Amino acid sequence: MGGTRVICTASLVEGVPQWKVGSGTGWLTAEYGMLPASTGARRPRDVTRGRLDGRIVEIQRLIGRSLRAVIDLDALGERTVYLDCDVLEADGGTRCAAITGAYVALKAALDELLDTGSVASLPLRTSVAAVSCGVVAGTELLDLAYAEDSTAEVDMNVVMTGADELVEVQATGEGVSFPRESLDRLLELAASGIAQLRAEQDAVVGSPAATSL
Amino acid sequence: MGGTRVICTASLVEGVPQWKVGSGTGWLTAEYGMLPASTGARRPRDVTRGRLDGRIVEIQRLIGRSLRAVIDLDALGERTVYLDCDVLEADGGTRCAAITGAYVALKAALDELLDTGSVASLPLRTSVAAVSCGVVAGTELLDLAYAEDSTAEVDMNVVMTGADELVEVQATGEGVSFPRESLDRLLELAASGIAQLRAEQDAVVGSPAATSL
Amino acid sequence: MGGTRVICTASLVEGVPQWKVGSGTGWLTAEYGMLPASTGARRPRDVTRGRLDGRIVEIQRLIGRSLRAVIDLDALGERTVYLDCDVLEADGGTRCAAITGAYVALKAALDELLDTGSVASLPLRTSVAAVSCGVVAGTELLDLAYAEDSTAEVDMNVVMTGADELVEVQATGEGVSFPRESLDRLLELAASGIAQLRAEQDAVVGSPAATSL
Amino acid sequence: MGGTRVICTASLVEGVPQWKVGSGTGWLTAEYGMLPASTGARRPRDVTRGRLDGRIVEIQRLIGRSLRAVIDLDALGERTVYLDCDVLEADGGTRCAAITGAYVALKAALDELLDTGSVASLPLRTSVAAVSCGVVAGTELLDLAYAEDSTAEVDMNVVMTGADELVEVQATGEGVSFPRESLDRLLELAASGIAQLRAEQDAVVGSPAATSL
Amino acid sequence: MGGTRVICTASLVEGVPQWKVGSGTGWLTAEYGMLPASTGARRPRDVTRGRLDGRIVEIQRLIGRSLRAVIDLDALGERTVYLDCDVLEADGGTRCAAITGAYVALKAALDELLDTGSVASLPLRTSVAAVSCGVVAGTELLDLAYAEDSTAEVDMNVVMTGADELVEVQATGEGVSFPRESLDRLLELAASGIAQLRAEQDAVVGSPAATSL
Amino acid sequence: MGGTRVICTASLVEGVPQWKVGSGTGWLTAEYGMLPASTGARRPRDVTRGRLDGRIVEIQRLIGRSLRAVIDLDALGERTVYLDCDVLEADGGTRCAAITGAYVALKAALDELLDTGSVASLPLRTSVAAVSCGVVAGTELLDLAYAEDSTAEVDMNVVMTGADELVEVQATGEGVSFPRESLDRLLELAASGIAQLRAEQDAVVGSPAATSL
Repeated sequence: MGGTRVICTASLVEGVPQWKVGSGTGWLTAEYGMLPASTGARRPRDVTRGRLDGRIVEIQRLIGRSLRAVIDLDALGERTVYLDCDVLEADGGTRCAAITGAYVALKAALDELLDTGSVASLPLRTSVAAVSCGVVAGTELLDLAYAEDSTAEVDMNVVMTGADELVEVQATGEGVSFPRESLDRLLELAASGIAQLRAEQDAVVGSPAATSL
Repeated sequence: MGGTRVICTASLVEGVPQWKVGSGTGWLTAEYGMLPASTGARRPRDVTRGRLDGRIVEIQRLIGRSLRAVIDLDALGERTVYLDCDVLEADGGTRCAAITGAYVALKAALDELLDTGSVASLPLRTSVAAVSCGVVAGTELLDLAYAEDSTAEVDMNVVMTGADELVEVQATGEGVSFPRESLDRLLELAASGIAQLRAEQDAVVGSPAATSL
Repeated sequence: MGGTRVICTASLVEGVPQWKVGSGTGWLTAEYGMLPASTGARRPRDVTRGRLDGRIVEIQRLIGRSLRAVIDLDALGERTVYLDCDVLEADGGTRCAAITGAYVALKAALDELLDTGSVASLPLRTSVAAVSCGVVAGTELLDLAYAEDSTAEVDMNVVMTGADELVEVQATGEGVSFPRESLDRLLELAASGIAQLRAEQDAVVGSPAATSL
Repeated sequence: MGGTRVICTASLVEGVPQWKVGSGTGWLTAEYGMLPASTGARRPRDVTRGRLDGRIVEIQRLIGRSLRAVIDLDALGERTVYLDCDVLEADGGTRCAAITGAYVALKAALDELLDTGSVASLPLRTSVAAVSCGVVAGTELLDLAYAEDSTAEVDMNVVMTGADELVEVQATGEGVSFPRESLDRLLELAASGIAQLRAEQDAVVGSPAATSL
Repeated sequence: MGGTRVICTASLVEGVPQWKVGSGTGWLTAEYGMLPASTGARRPRDVTRGRLDGRIVEIQRLIGRSLRAVIDLDALGERTVYLDCDVLEADGGTRCAAITGAYVALKAALDELLDTGSVASLPLRTSVAAVSCGVVAGTELLDLAYAEDSTAEVDMNVVMTGADELVEVQATGEGVSFPRESLDRLLELAASGIAQLRAEQDAVVGSPAATSL
Repeated sequence: MGGTRVICTASLVEGVPQWKVGSGTGWLTAEYGMLPASTGARRPRDVTRGRLDGRIVEIQRLIGRSLRAVIDLDALGERTVYLDCDVLEADGGTRCAAITGAYVALKAALDELLDTGSVASLPLRTSVAAVSCGVVAGTELLDLAYAEDSTAEVDMNVVMTGADELVEVQATGEGVSFPRESLDRLLELAASGIAQLRAEQDAVVGSPAATSL
């Protein structure tokens, strides 16, 4: 996605975390990382600092929530999906790229599960994608690159499903506040961007409806 | 705030973090904690687990961003404000209560700074408050209690200034998605709740405009 | 207790630690913390530093031992009591205030256990309270405030039961030594202080003998 | 000391911790460790568990306080003494053995400092030694071995100087309380034991008075 | 390299670690990581486990030593090179692939330093490459794939320079011992493999001699 | 071994790690530590730094591998041997001293197991010992002392069994490379040194063949 490159993988493991054993339903969790040389100035490894910084924790929770909104955990059965999103090169919008790419990996993994007869139907309700937008120098922009993102007055991430519904809206004034009208314009921009991403996803792994019919 | 009780304190320290030394401007940071007996089932201490869980990291970053949107760091000079928000009893909406209460502690601390002549004017642009809302059983509700929050389909936190502008909007579908119309109704509800909180804040520490005149 | 305020709670949980399972007896453990703004200069959170400092470890072990000296773990059955003592404001003697307050919380929790018929008799042998004393500028003093404590030559903590017996005696020369006669005078002072604290405890939760009859 | 063997070393380093720089006085700190095979059942290394357990923290603080009560930090000048006490074999009373042995190592190190002319007089006011005692099966005993210590009703450690004064008294009822008379008898026992240890220390490194004359 | 893929990057930073400041010479350090999905069964992230496992520490020390054997730290001046080797897919021999690839990244980075006139000559004495070999089912083999490596009786890694000299030899019997003759045959095999790798490296970034002339 | 002194102990525990339960075979693991005063300048404890440094991790893995090459884990049955090697004084070659000494402790522990009838035959195939060698000022030397080791161009550790076979060969150029001929001469030197160490081991605990007959 522009100068941003993220490797997304889905690993399917039999079994679920302790608190879901016996529930008959599955689980999906996501992790996010950045290679040290993915950013302009080299970024020390998380393990070197001994802990995940707050930003990374927020991002991997967001990815997990976004994908759990579209997977059908009941149909998955007692299996766990690990989504790993590792940034090779970062030029803004890595969390949105991670969600959009993780969906592709998830769809491919679930298709394989269906093909091998491990599940009766594709455990996926619809697709999901995410895009960043923001206000830069007073103007609403879609899909901010790093140079734009780092000077934005308002930073926003929107996650939407293939059914055009919202999963997550995060709008943050960076040391400033913003009027309701600005929020509305940003939501329109985001919806148009997500429609394009959805078309790209469907081109690669097919649309979930098509598969499950 | 209902069954939720949070102690909020502001500690002013001369000096700023290393990366701001010599900038002439100040810094504000927030920390959030929960006493072990603040929740229904006793919650192990963070230090026992050796690290902050993701939820706490998210919350203290949110509190910091919200208050930095209204403080005037230039007027503060090279001082650091630590906002500590510790939950004594939790019944939903603790992060919003923390933001609303932290503002009161901040205003009182800055008033004292002004009274002692340490700053020429109150380093505060306006007030800030936060409220939770959400969709529970298909209905939009304001200021969710724990029992409501834990069954909500959509969970939302809104932070707004005394100038009726947005600082932060976080809307999350809990395993579901939701239409744009629902988001709009929740934003209206939040604005009305924040107006009430602002009146309570002003009653305690005076409105920032009144002081700075 | 003077300028010192400590929130003490007792949480009763069914079950015991692994090493006591099947023993038929219960367990009691204590934890101690300080809110960041409880001290004159703001104190960083324990979790920020990644570990408990030595002083806190000593204190929570002392609280646990003191309360275990008076609870009847056999009568409690396989249940665990967690005593949490969190300092809101510190002006000396916080560990003694924590022991004295934790007893009140424990008595109230055990009374409730008895009232609901979960135990046949109150699992408590007697009360317990603690007081600090010390030698300041050559004079023995009872219940040192922070300003006194920080200049004391000898610092002492005494824990005694409602039966006027000792549970713990800790006397420490701060870079100095002291004669046996000084120790004897401090023990007398402590006994008189603990008698007053016991009267206050009994006024709030009743004396254990009265309840168990 | 009986079946207990502890290696005690004193390392002298030029300079003091940050908070003492420029004070003209020195510092002394102690650390305590146990080899994995020093106890009956093999004990995992502290570093394996990632942190010091509470007991070790208490012990190394006690050793440090005890030796700081007799060293003359002003005469030492801006130097730091590290006392390392590592238990090779443990059969009760390791903290007392550590204090008694650490004094010997300290005296030898300070003698060398005096011999090389680095200090004008021996920076030591008197000697220090420690002994354990306790109540086992109703009887007061001196210098408890592990088998006695683990069944003691009352466990006590006493630290005394060469001038027969107290530095530290720690008496703990292990789940029981004990009368004042028992404390008095234990203090007498401890004083007699420490007199014997002092004679042994003086035989090895000379008494501090003799040297400093 | 076969089924093994490792991203190697070299990051050049002005300045050196504290212990080399003022020495006029540079430093080179290496880090190694594996993406969670790089191995057959998903591998938890290092940061999740809170520490690097022993194998990773060994590998990144080996990479650093190998490249320091060929870089000219005096000619580099007070700069630090960070070599990051992150495994995307692992099929045996990842540490050797990392060394071989890290050399390519290092050469390219130093060439750029020379091109921009930051150094007077290429700070590189020769090239370096590494290969694994071993004894599998009694036969000496070169460049073991994972399936071979996991059943090898003897596992060996050899690092050699462009001048056909050894930098590191690590030969390990996996629960067995092996005769000196076997070691000699493995060293011959390794030398032939490294000659091939050197040709590939030179094809990509040119041979160091050619550049520095 | 010269100025190097290492305490080696073998602790036998019934049971094996989780991943070997039910296998019918045993396990052997090694840990290595250094007392703070074992080195010239005092070395901070590992637990103080919160983690093992890379060098210690490498060493304890090497010790474990070396001893696992000679123990018969099948004959041991589901028992675990912990080998603890703690350096009291370090003057070079501590890892080799640890391996050589750990073998003595292991042999003594296994003899006892055989004497008490817990195993049918001695679970040991042969002996094992290790020696360091290196190139110092252009000359190959055996058993380097610290002063030699710290200036060596090539540093090598060789582990060999009582059957004159190799278990581990680690040869490292310290910022330099070295020709194959140098490696060959070092291997000869090491073999002669290990023969001497083997004679010393056998003198203390008997040769394994003699016992198992």
